[in-house]
Amino acid sequence: MEGFGVHTSMWTMTWDREGAEKAVAGAVEYGMDFIEIALLDAPSVDAKHTRDLLEKHGLRAVCSLGLPQSVWASVNPDGAVDHLKLALDKAREMGAEALSGVTYGGIGERTGQPPTEQELSNVAKTLEAAARYAADLGLGFGIEPVNRYENHLINTGWQARDMIERIGADNIFIHLDTYHMNIEEKGAANGILDAREHLRYIHLSESDRGTPGEGCCDWDEIFAALSAIEFKGGLAMESFINMPPEIAYGLSVWRPVAESHQEVMDKGLPFLRNKASQYRLI
Amino acid sequence: MEGFGVHTSMWTMTWDREGAEKAVAGAVEYGMDFIEIALLDAPSVDAKHTRDLLEKHGLRAVCSLGLPQSVWASVNPDGAVDHLKLALDKAREMGAEALSGVTYGGIGERTGQPPTEQELSNVAKTLEAAARYAADLGLGFGIEPVNRYENHLINTGWQARDMIERIGADNIFIHLDTYHMNIEEKGAANGILDAREHLRYIHLSESDRGTPGEGCCDWDEIFAALSAIEFKGGLAMESFINMPPEIAYGLSVWRPVAESHQEVMDKGLPFLRNKASQYRLI
Amino acid sequence: MEGFGVHTSMWTMTWDREGAEKAVAGAVEYGMDFIEIALLDAPSVDAKHTRDLLEKHGLRAVCSLGLPQSVWASVNPDGAVDHLKLALDKAREMGAEALSGVTYGGIGERTGQPPTEQELSNVAKTLEAAARYAADLGLGFGIEPVNRYENHLINTGWQARDMIERIGADNIFIHLDTYHMNIEEKGAANGILDAREHLRYIHLSESDRGTPGEGCCDWDEIFAALSAIEFKGGLAMESFINMPPEIAYGLSVWRPVAESHQEVMDKGLPFLRNKASQYRLI
Amino acid sequence: MEGFGVHTSMWTMTWDREGAEKAVAGAVEYGMDFIEIALLDAPSVDAKHTRDLLEKHGLRAVCSLGLPQSVWASVNPDGAVDHLKLALDKAREMGAEALSGVTYGGIGERTGQPPTEQELSNVAKTLEAAARYAADLGLGFGIEPVNRYENHLINTGWQARDMIERIGADNIFIHLDTYHMNIEEKGAANGILDAREHLRYIHLSESDRGTPGEGCCDWDEIFAALSAIEFKGGLAMESFINMPPEIAYGLSVWRPVAESHQEVMDKGLPFLRNKASQYRLI
Repeated sequence: MEGFGVHTSMWTMTWDREGAEKAVAGAVEYGMDFIEIALLDAPSVDAKHTRDLLEKHGLRAVCSLGLPQSVWASVNPDGAVDHLKLALDKAREMGAEALSGVTYGGIGERTGQPPTEQELSNVAKTLEAAARYAADLGLGFGIEPVNRYENHLINTGWQARDMIERIGADNIFIHLDTYHMNIEEKGAANGILDAREHLRYIHLSESDRGTPGEGCCDWDEIFAALSAIEFKGGLAMESFINMPPEIAYGLSVWRPVAESHQEVMDKGLPFLRNKASQYRLI
Repeated sequence: MEGFGVHTSMWTMTWDREGAEKAVAGAVEYGMDFIEIALLDAPSVDAKHTRDLLEKHGLRAVCSLGLPQSVWASVNPDGAVDHLKLALDKAREMGAEALSGVTYGGIGERTGQPPTEQELSNVAKTLEAAARYAADLGLGFGIEPVNRYENHLINTGWQARDMIERIGADNIFIHLDTYHMNIEEKGAANGILDAREHLRYIHLSESDRGTPGEGCCDWDEIFAALSAIEFKGGLAMESFINMPPEIAYGLSVWRPVAESHQEVMDKGLPFLRNKASQYRLI
Repeated sequence: MEGFGVHTSMWTMTWDREGAEKAVAGAVEYGMDFIEIALLDAPSVDAKHTRDLLEKHGLRAVCSLGLPQSVWASVNPDGAVDHLKLALDKAREMGAEALSGVTYGGIGERTGQPPTEQELSNVAKTLEAAARYAADLGLGFGIEPVNRYENHLINTGWQARDMIERIGADNIFIHLDTYHMNIEEKGAANGILDAREHLRYIHLSESDRGTPGEGCCDWDEIFAALSAIEFKGGLAMESFINMPPEIAYGLSVWRPVAESHQEVMDKGLPFLRNKASQYRLI
Repeated sequence: MEGFGVHTSMWTMTWDREGAEKAVAGAVEYGMDFIEIALLDAPSVDAKHTRDLLEKHGLRAVCSLGLPQSVWASVNPDGAVDHLKLALDKAREMGAEALSGVTYGGIGERTGQPPTEQELSNVAKTLEAAARYAADLGLGFGIEPVNRYENHLINTGWQARDMIERIGADNIFIHLDTYHMNIEEKGAANGILDAREHLRYIHLSESDRGTPGEGCCDWDEIFAALSAIEFKGGLAMESFINMPPEIAYGLSVWRPVAESHQEVMDKGLPFLRNKASQYRLI
């Protein structure tokens, strides 16, 4: 994972052949280095089709997911491991470099209480097994802290680092997201500082998940801190405008937060590239 | 409502005699102009005790609430009106100037869908009746947009303005909150610009609800915009560190977001006062 | 003055026929509403040529200058008035809408002391006469506060306002510049707030006079404040990369502060337009 | 050099016995780790008196200066070396840890042209000799980039780094200043990134040289970048309100930029300490 990528939600939320072709064509048109593919339904993906598409266009890929409620790691670690292994197998067949996202739980998982020792222990057990499996496949494996409303287990950079240190794994990376950091961190840079040793991937997402550069994220602080820690990982623009029903509740976007995907690509992407260039990241 | 106030969660989440005395003493010690009292259980409040306390110390007050699920305005407007009337009566007895907050629904109310016309119509009907009742009592009545996760009905300044214009009411004010604006607005100032004609109250709350000045809120932009629109309403510092269980799920704070209330008062409050002074608001 | 313009230093620092044609063609290509023309040597300008060019392309213009040392208003008010009248005549012949800039003194004028009453009185006398002359010609007349190193007389928005109130003129406008405000104002918005009643023109210039969006100016605060005061005047992008020797000392740019004018137009201009649009100014 | 210090201009611009006693008492009262003493007239300083004062209070010190015109390094390197040696001797006698500032030239030195090779060569020769002399005395020796108006030779972090690399010295450190960075750097962090290997001292000075926290400096970006590079050097608050005539022209402060030194100490210092703490620097 390195260079500048984009989440394929810009073009599709369904990774069938048609969606894949549309997304890859779009990413190529905008000169992206990689794409992020949401593995919402891993079994249904035609992995060979994606692999061929990626190879044909010299595009790299990262897969991401959140766990369905039946296999939340905090309560069903074995189920979670099975789910993650299946997704890792598929990611490998697709030719992806890594699996990341809310790999430790659900988008929308909240008990109403702070995480318990049992929950964290189950999560650790799950992540350890999944990361080992990923390593055997030659894949990276990441965890993405999300905000307090989307999950109660890991909201900050330091919580992600603590989880990794608890496991003692050196093959789990942290995947930050500026949208969540804008809610959870005491200055976005502090999340980057806490995660720095494990940070290999970052979602560049605006404070309302709309067009980057037109919200409340402090992009100067974010890119300055990334540059200062000599970040070499993947920079992935992410924006969620239209939500499939199964994740609408968790993500809770109730109105269009940008005029169109076109606006995000034509205004947001140049903004991010210029900022990344200003702070010497690309 | 005017001057600099503080939400009484700094000292108590239970508005009994003990809580009230502690909060008023604290507010007086820090030279606040007013306090905000959470009316989580209006009937239980000893209104005369509060009124006497406030008068004794020359302190003004604003009451706030969110609706319990059984009386969410979107589904039970009549129940909501009854609940609000009771709270307004109590607020008046306590000597408060206004009732505000999520007066249109629940903290944590989400259907998984954008607001429907029926929901908005029920909300409008509720607010119209409650505002009229408040006016008869000589009280102000406000609505506070909150972020997408805490409610799906009114998340932004322009949605609050649209609701007021839909009702045609001139006695409902908008109550903004910098914590929510940091998630929902395309630059905090845009929320202020959208609400400007109706804006009479604002929560000054940091991006993680911790110590103001130590997070991601763009306080320069916030105070600059407030000053430019010649805002004369109440400036209320708010921070949520310890949550009572009944609102923990809605607010979703799973870890201490500040070292202590002392830190918020001794570092956050001077920060906000200095910024307000820099931009000529106080 | 209204809409989005650009200082013609992007294309030329010599306003001869060739320079004028190059600049107008460039401004038209980028869809500017107006251009700002530096009247460094008013007598030499072929006014009819410029007027025809502007009319042909439906482009509006503003002229700007600083006073040569021999006619600094603080010491030679009569000379200053003569110089300004000549420039105003030329501006009118060229079809410009206004004359602005450091119309009260020199770029680089500093005595080593705070402004004296005598100096300010001379300046007031000069501006009053020039503004009256401009009004007779149907031209706007502006004053631009500049930073402490470029002039010791008027550095801030409030000093410009004080000067206008001292004269009692209602036909002098304030022309702010974000580059100077970044040095002189206690938050850029404060300069805008001080100038608001008289503000009709603003230079959008980055903190190092390079590519807008790639420096230290707080553009969110700037555009938020402009929007909040309902600014309707001219927004003029300005960047100084190559300096003619006669103003190099005053402006003191000793290295290229952008890669090229192309970079300023292709990265800086879209940045400013997007920010202006985000905050509803265009 | 480490910890939190303050420039003694807060209390005096004359380093005689009275000034020294006032400044040291003030610094001790506010719990500073060190003070910065301006060596405007080294020969006149009673070094033993200062040394005893510092020792008595367990306070550390750094000396700073700019070169008088007669010994600007660019034109008179031998004179500059002599001047610097004398200052270094005095700094050592006073018990200071380092000599820094505009050690390469004058505050207000500008030729109207970019630095020439001859000028830079003279500066390099001067700095090399002075740094060697400082090393023999056990003192640190620093260079402070200043803005384009105060000197035309070294305005940015990368120019300071280039000068050090040109000399090949490992005993010259870079001393940044947020006031100058706010004018010269493409985002303050970029200056810190350019200087990082040599950075051992930084002036925390607001954009108008007034009260820190009440201007245009992006303190979040500054402290985030300092923290990310694991800065361990001295953090010195600086504000210039009242200027002695001999440096008023160079510094060009023509009006009070803060209400009082008290305001700077009581509002600016806590602001900086809180920000430094938020980003884990202290």
